[in-house]
Amino acid sequence: MTPLAVPPFSPIGLAICIFFILLVPFAGAGLALINTGLGRSRSAAHSMLASLCVMAVAATVYIVLGFSWQGFIGRPAHVLTVGGKGWNWIAAEPFFARGLALDGSPASLAAFLQMLSVGLAAMIPLGSGADRWRLGAVLASTALLAGVTYPLFAHWVWGGGWLAQLGVNNGLGRGFIDAGGASSIQALGGLTALAIAWILGPRLGKYSPEGMPAAIPGHNAVLVLFACLLTLIGWLGLNSAGAILFTGAPPGQVVLIGINTTLAAASALLAAAVVTRARFGKPDASLCANGWVGGLVASSAACAFTTPILAIVIGLVAGALVTLSVEWFELRLAVDDPGGAISVHAVGGLWGVLAVGLFARFPSGRVVDVTPLGLAQLRLPGSNSLQWLAQLIGIATLIGFVLPLTYGLNWLLNQFYPLRVSSDGERQGMDLYELGAGAYPEIDTTNEEFM
Amino acid sequence: MTPLAVPPFSPIGLAICIFFILLVPFAGAGLALINTGLGRSRSAAHSMLASLCVMAVAATVYIVLGFSWQGFIGRPAHVLTVGGKGWNWIAAEPFFARGLALDGSPASLAAFLQMLSVGLAAMIPLGSGADRWRLGAVLASTALLAGVTYPLFAHWVWGGGWLAQLGVNNGLGRGFIDAGGASSIQALGGLTALAIAWILGPRLGKYSPEGMPAAIPGHNAVLVLFACLLTLIGWLGLNSAGAILFTGAPPGQVVLIGINTTLAAASALLAAAVVTRARFGKPDASLCANGWVGGLVASSAACAFTTPILAIVIGLVAGALVTLSVEWFELRLAVDDPGGAISVHAVGGLWGVLAVGLFARFPSGRVVDVTPLGLAQLRLPGSNSLQWLAQLIGIATLIGFVLPLTYGLNWLLNQFYPLRVSSDGERQGMDLYELGAGAYPEIDTTNEEFM
Amino acid sequence: MTPLAVPPFSPIGLAICIFFILLVPFAGAGLALINTGLGRSRSAAHSMLASLCVMAVAATVYIVLGFSWQGFIGRPAHVLTVGGKGWNWIAAEPFFARGLALDGSPASLAAFLQMLSVGLAAMIPLGSGADRWRLGAVLASTALLAGVTYPLFAHWVWGGGWLAQLGVNNGLGRGFIDAGGASSIQALGGLTALAIAWILGPRLGKYSPEGMPAAIPGHNAVLVLFACLLTLIGWLGLNSAGAILFTGAPPGQVVLIGINTTLAAASALLAAAVVTRARFGKPDASLCANGWVGGLVASSAACAFTTPILAIVIGLVAGALVTLSVEWFELRLAVDDPGGAISVHAVGGLWGVLAVGLFARFPSGRVVDVTPLGLAQLRLPGSNSLQWLAQLIGIATLIGFVLPLTYGLNWLLNQFYPLRVSSDGERQGMDLYELGAGAYPEIDTTNEEFM
Repeated sequence: MTPLAVPPFSPIGLAICIFFILLVPFAGAGLALINTGLGRSRSAAHSMLASLCVMAVAATVYIVLGFSWQGFIGRPAHVLTVGGKGWNWIAAEPFFARGLALDGSPASLAAFLQMLSVGLAAMIPLGSGADRWRLGAVLASTALLAGVTYPLFAHWVWGGGWLAQLGVNNGLGRGFIDAGGASSIQALGGLTALAIAWILGPRLGKYSPEGMPAAIPGHNAVLVLFACLLTLIGWLGLNSAGAILFTGAPPGQVVLIGINTTLAAASALLAAAVVTRARFGKPDASLCANGWVGGLVASSAACAFTTPILAIVIGLVAGALVTLSVEWFELRLAVDDPGGAISVHAVGGLWGVLAVGLFARFPSGRVVDVTPLGLAQLRLPGSNSLQWLAQLIGIATLIGFVLPLTYGLNWLLNQFYPLRVSSDGERQGMDLYELGAGAYPEIDTTNEEFM
Repeated sequence: MTPLAVPPFSPIGLAICIFFILLVPFAGAGLALINTGLGRSRSAAHSMLASLCVMAVAATVYIVLGFSWQGFIGRPAHVLTVGGKGWNWIAAEPFFARGLALDGSPASLAAFLQMLSVGLAAMIPLGSGADRWRLGAVLASTALLAGVTYPLFAHWVWGGGWLAQLGVNNGLGRGFIDAGGASSIQALGGLTALAIAWILGPRLGKYSPEGMPAAIPGHNAVLVLFACLLTLIGWLGLNSAGAILFTGAPPGQVVLIGINTTLAAASALLAAAVVTRARFGKPDASLCANGWVGGLVASSAACAFTTPILAIVIGLVAGALVTLSVEWFELRLAVDDPGGAISVHAVGGLWGVLAVGLFARFPSGRVVDVTPLGLAQLRLPGSNSLQWLAQLIGIATLIGFVLPLTYGLNWLLNQFYPLRVSSDGERQGMDLYELGAGAYPEIDTTNEEFM
Repeated sequence: MTPLAVPPFSPIGLAICIFFILLVPFAGAGLALINTGLGRSRSAAHSMLASLCVMAVAATVYIVLGFSWQGFIGRPAHVLTVGGKGWNWIAAEPFFARGLALDGSPASLAAFLQMLSVGLAAMIPLGSGADRWRLGAVLASTALLAGVTYPLFAHWVWGGGWLAQLGVNNGLGRGFIDAGGASSIQALGGLTALAIAWILGPRLGKYSPEGMPAAIPGHNAVLVLFACLLTLIGWLGLNSAGAILFTGAPPGQVVLIGINTTLAAASALLAAAVVTRARFGKPDASLCANGWVGGLVASSAACAFTTPILAIVIGLVAGALVTLSVEWFELRLAVDDPGGAISVHAVGGLWGVLAVGLFARFPSGRVVDVTPLGLAQLRLPGSNSLQWLAQLIGIATLIGFVLPLTYGLNWLLNQFYPLRVSSDGERQGMDLYELGAGAYPEIDTTNEEFM
């Protein structure tokens, strides 16, 4: 019934896990700077403050409510028997994580990791909603993500839910596999970013009456590119901690995961540089940054199950895909996404999930001791075939269920509490209008051209 | 006699401790950016260089002298017998830490942690002395803190000194408890910041002849808010390493500590946003940043001994308290504290110390094995009553002894080596006057309005 | 034959090593910001993007090719017998690191550490080539470093090569010793920076027709000084991970290494402040930053083998040396090195290598258990005399072989693919010319004065 047995946890597992979990806030710091740097200077303080507030609301709501519905493998959950098989739909934990001893057990580590990751997912839409999304609405939308959308889907993937059960119950490979959150964190956040961008509509001046988009450059490329280095560190944490906690990877495998993660980011950056040079004559710094993060996003799902060579392939595809997708959303779909959040996190994340089906290789036995250190054992029950089908079902769930759900929730919110700032406020800039002060009061900026 | 037995230290304890200790410099990086961002652009390079120099002087002086007087539980110290009970006043270690094998033992880890923490305490006054405190005087003042004030008080709290002995000797709870340094690092630094602000006096143009304060906004809110994320990471290190080394917390408890620390920062931020919105109509980004850090500061003392719900309460109170305190110091006491250092670190720290008395719950036995991992044991001898009295005695010591001591030392210094720059220098900006070059030589800044 | 036996590796060794390895990217982030902040604003995005691309190319090339030639102690290599003794010249691993199980073994950890360190070495020349080095040429040059120069020299030092064998084969101390990469990362990168600066020539407007240098200040001192804090964190990782993996230091010794590393940076900063104040009347922020990093660089080689007092001495000398060297290269040699990369990394690194010969003390036995934790054993075979000669041979190899090699490779590259941008491009700024967009499009910068 339980698709994945929790590996017996050693002190060393705790030490390594806690270390990787505490790298995750660097991913948040990186996304905050990227979103801010790719936005306008007149909204810079607003963007950073919104990022902090998103983390704060997400962490609090998740501990108060979210974890109750996400839970962890082998812990209380609502199981529905269909066709003689038990399907696990939602966890059944008390609120405030009171059912859980916060003592270093795998379940408590998972709760800690999620408390930090859910904020990451909720920060992604700040990229697509930049320069026009009201702070109060950001917080309400964050509460919906941290309290409803995220824990529900993450339970299905990481809490022993029905997607993880596809292997044992239906013989689809090892069930849906996502070590580091390409689906539950990235694609979920990226699809929410799409919903937000649709509801908000494009920035004033972004599209001419004829529908031609204007290029509105970010105000600080140095912050954006510096932030890429922070995201690398954060993703090394995300991918390693996730692989250990959710797929039972032995601690020694963090070396493979670290090399794969770095190579995916590296090759995605180079792919983005080549593609933008080919299309525009010169490499584009912003799109290179998007490519780099897209490579990290795409590496998350399969990081523990591929070779370095395949990690490079995953990264190359991600970098090219993200770059083309940014153009496609801007030109074809007229979706205004200043930070490229949809392309980086939704497109990159879905590609990463698919890559598991294409490239991942799992140990063949049911229980395999893969480490010479004898620290843990890789236990992914299931078969060796049809893994791609399990991954496709996960992708279909994201597009067919999570996207409508997050769109619906935010559309409803918008009816009662409009997400978008007034036109006056947008012209004035979010900093002055919503916070009463600019980010750089001693510097004269010239940002009137796009109003 | 020894109030706290050092837990038997396992390799895993070393691994986890060293990891958390090395997160502490992020707290320093965060404070440096916050102080700089909340100051003027014409003093920005000075502020950052002063932060680096403070760290350098503090670390060096601490290893050369300070550790000799701080020591560690169970190591050589001067004990005075009063009323039949031994009271431990000051450590008796050789200079240059030569008495200590730097080999990963708990005492050596404590020395390493302190070497990094003392710089943190010494950076706090840079916030209140911004834009007018001479670099040479900063360094002299830092030497006094790292060589005298800090090691003395920290010995009493963390070195087995008389404050820690209040439990065993007088039956006041477990003795004065402060896991992460709300008193020894934060309140001590914050009270020194108050002393410095008093001695320096307000910036030119801060108060009108009628005593009305002018708002002088910080020059870069993005740096300030980014730095908040760095402080979170640093405090996760401070609180966890301190709890393990100084209160014998089992390594697995770092999960509880991490969740509590994050929730305290989160709720303090939200409280600051609500309070500033209520008072000024709009949330204030700088005060929100102050609130966030104030929540971290307040979390330090009790982080290992409360539930997540109580951590949220501690944070909410801290956020509101810090915000109101900033206004109170500026309007009522006419103390010019550009970085809010007094309110964040002194007020927030004292509240955190008090919160231990109000909320902390300790295991009931004298020696309790609280971890399923069998890694360490929580050993806080003493009773379960009157903990609040031990905490109040600590607060009284800070206000009644540490504040006069640090004020007196800096007052004396000021007689021989004036702390404040000349009026000309202040008008010109600390960068040009003391360093000969501005921080942003290619950008025209408009900062003449407050001169 | 093998000069250094790999210590038996425990799970705790893996945990501590992986943790320190993952701090290394902070060193890269720090160098990127330092190079960018010390450059002009019109090249800022280019500098940051080049840093990211350097990391990407270096990591990829190293895993594809470089590791094959670097290898690790006790693994396949080409050995040549000369005079009855076996000399190890180059490793013999398959490409793509396919011969290596990436499972947490010491060799796999070394590969991971190197993948991150080689990018660090390759980023150093960005400091000396700032504002005029074309992105395409940067990448080609990086590939040469990561594929040829670095793995070759690092094999000699860390892969059981002939420099490490000088102790066992010739009785020169313990053979050439460099725990954290003062030679293989820093001096190698710094000498490449010298080669690049020679090939590129000075920036337009740097020298008057009479040869007098103009001071061209960096555009953002705050970034530079903030980055110093990041480099400290990165170096704590480099020095500790290197000492454990390459010199068999017991994990507990990371406390000594951490204290020494911090004190070396601290004292080098203070030395630079004193020297610049003595020479120019005021401390210079940029040179203080250079001094700090120079202290870190110099600490790398001997960090595990000196006392804190000697670490302070190493730092003081490094800080003074770097400051004077910057002036010497600029005034006497007319080498234009905007970031001070040559002085910081080459001069600082060579001094650090020499300091091992002057100050290091090794355990006297062949195999010594130095830790009370029983975690590992220090095994540096060899004698206790003539260590200085081994170090001098290493220095001679760097200057006499590595410098000509890296100069020759880049000179050859320059024949086919010019390293320097056109004069038009240089006047326009690298951002606009090579990337098509500036880093700060909303800010008017005044940087025409030096054209």
